Amino acid sequence: MTTLVAAVHPIDQAAADAARDRHARLAKPAGSLGRLEEVGAQLAAIAGACPPPPVDRPGLVIAAADHGVHVQQVTPWPQQVTAAMVETFRAGRATANALAALVGAEVAVLDAGVVTPLADGEAAAGAAIPLVRAGIRAGTEDITAADAMTLPECVAAVQAGAATADSLLDRGIDLLIGGDMGIANTTAAAALIAAYTGASAEAVTGRGTGVDDPTYRRKQEVVAKAVARHRAQTTAPRAGLPSLAALGGLEHAALTGVLLAGAARRVPVLLDGVNAVAAALAATAICPPVAGYLIAGHRSAEPGASAGLAQLGLSPLLELEMRLGEGTGALAAVGLVRAAATVLREVATLDELGLAGG
Amino acid sequence: MTTLVAAVHPIDQAAADAARDRHARLAKPAGSLGRLEEVGAQLAAIAGACPPPPVDRPGLVIAAADHGVHVQQVTPWPQQVTAAMVETFRAGRATANALAALVGAEVAVLDAGVVTPLADGEAAAGAAIPLVRAGIRAGTEDITAADAMTLPECVAAVQAGAATADSLLDRGIDLLIGGDMGIANTTAAAALIAAYTGASAEAVTGRGTGVDDPTYRRKQEVVAKAVARHRAQTTAPRAGLPSLAALGGLEHAALTGVLLAGAARRVPVLLDGVNAVAAALAATAICPPVAGYLIAGHRSAEPGASAGLAQLGLSPLLELEMRLGEGTGALAAVGLVRAAATVLREVATLDELGLAGG
Repeated sequence: MTTLVAAVHPIDQAAADAARDRHARLAKPAGSLGRLEEVGAQLAAIAGACPPPPVDRPGLVIAAADHGVHVQQVTPWPQQVTAAMVETFRAGRATANALAALVGAEVAVLDAGVVTPLADGEAAAGAAIPLVRAGIRAGTEDITAADAMTLPECVAAVQAGAATADSLLDRGIDLLIGGDMGIANTTAAAALIAAYTGASAEAVTGRGTGVDDPTYRRKQEVVAKAVARHRAQTTAPRAGLPSLAALGGLEHAALTGVLLAGAARRVPVLLDGVNAVAAALAATAICPPVAGYLIAGHRSAEPGASAGLAQLGLSPLLELEMRLGEGTGALAAVGLVRAAATVLREVATLDELGLAGG
Repeated sequence: MTTLVAAVHPIDQAAADAARDRHARLAKPAGSLGRLEEVGAQLAAIAGACPPPPVDRPGLVIAAADHGVHVQQVTPWPQQVTAAMVETFRAGRATANALAALVGAEVAVLDAGVVTPLADGEAAAGAAIPLVRAGIRAGTEDITAADAMTLPECVAAVQAGAATADSLLDRGIDLLIGGDMGIANTTAAAALIAAYTGASAEAVTGRGTGVDDPTYRRKQEVVAKAVARHRAQTTAPRAGLPSLAALGGLEHAALTGVLLAGAARRVPVLLDGVNAVAAALAATAICPPVAGYLIAGHRSAEPGASAGLAQLGLSPLLELEMRLGEGTGALAAVGLVRAAATVLREVATLDELGLAGG
């Protein structure tokens, strides 16, 4: 963990400046590509080179886990759905698989702490994607009554996520995405976002998969209770690991590790929805320079996502009212990140066309 | 022209309903893909089939032309830049080429009426893309003093655009984009949008490539004068072809033909920026059922684009502050249209997973 954090260096602002200068000399009006120019400069800063390398091989780590807070009836879905979706990811039949295939993204599936027993790594019938098992614990504690996990368990989950990301990075992945699956995880995400941003439980709690009014009110109360319990126990409410261990899910901890691993390897990380944003708040609390490596893919319909993105200073590339998770919002934005790199690499300069000063 | 308009049939609402029903049965919470679900339903309605066919082969027609209103000093750029960019498109070195290559889009370049002489169709040194020549006229009249073109010239330009699109469609293009190039064409686009929407010249005129304050004020006055002249001459200010001929550019007329051709062949058309929106207003004024085939790719920074999109009832997939034209805003959105089709084709239903009612 210390090694991982120490490996993250600030991004290279000189390369970002070089990208901005190159954009001003391309065969188009200055600034006419808007946000794509900003992303291009960030990609240059991350790689430490202008033009930045192409974005050829995205990779997605889907981290799945269950949540003790499920007993508080914050969602109508049973925990078995977490396991069923893990099997669907492994069989290549979920939305994340379809969108990953479309952009050529490799997918890794991590059982960060699913309660329902899953078939063995290579053995599940029809599974095309092997299952990585964190083997830490099955689900978290109910965060209204106890810390979700211990600090050592949290560190182990962060490391499991980082190791899964590293296995993709070792195979040449050049854009990293963390996706999530976990029934009740928008409750934990809201609690994390409230803890890291200081916002109220009401302001950051959303309807997740689309819960009804009584469930929504209960969910807000549950988040408020969990955050109040955590605040009463600590004098450092915005601390990185302790808040993650107290309020988060095992998949949030694993996603935090994915972000740290990407930043440590100087690879851009494209954020998905509210669970990825919660992990990004944890990762930047643990290791502030991680922020430079983050690109926000999609603004989740969950209100906590916007609160978290505002604290991170990020503005998402897409706002399509998606709220699925699994990495799908980030996968939808891969083409835009690719476009940002490609423009800096492929478009002619005015000089090359003999139009400079024209 | 009459044949082209008669070939456009309304989209199939039953297929859209079938797509919405299928979305409700996929292995994800209902509605959780937001705007992608709407686009999927529209693709089904356009194809008349659910799931819709994949979007494998996008095609881009870039129509270029010059504008008589250039003499009113509405832009600092000389008309030679229109021709220089046409050569850059043909050489594959412009932003549109880079983004087209990234999404596998075929590019056709149409000289709809460029003033500066261009090298011959196959002869230009280094040109990878042949030039299609409309051969109607070189540039338009100054719209503050005369109609931009005659009605027969306008019809010929529409037909040239439609023929260029048809040549792509004959090769199996399954998503059509119209891009524009023409120094001063945001002035003509603003005049068209004012005429078709009834909005004021001030409300729809933007800074185009980024003109300074005195030029911007002059541009607003020029648009107001052109629209007032046109309104004084006609009792039907929102008529399709007469307004296009009076105020538009030859590339706006050609793009109108591209839209009509796509709709006639039941292929979705992805709109780019303010010039494509002006053409969409013309196309739907001429032939209202065209509207069903239009997907707005990107909200241009030009205010006229938003006024036009509002009248068309369209909400763009992207808002990235782009304002380049060439089809680039639409090319950036191709991946999202692809994703919308792919989800309906590839994702498992709850039935297939044995989770229905779970």
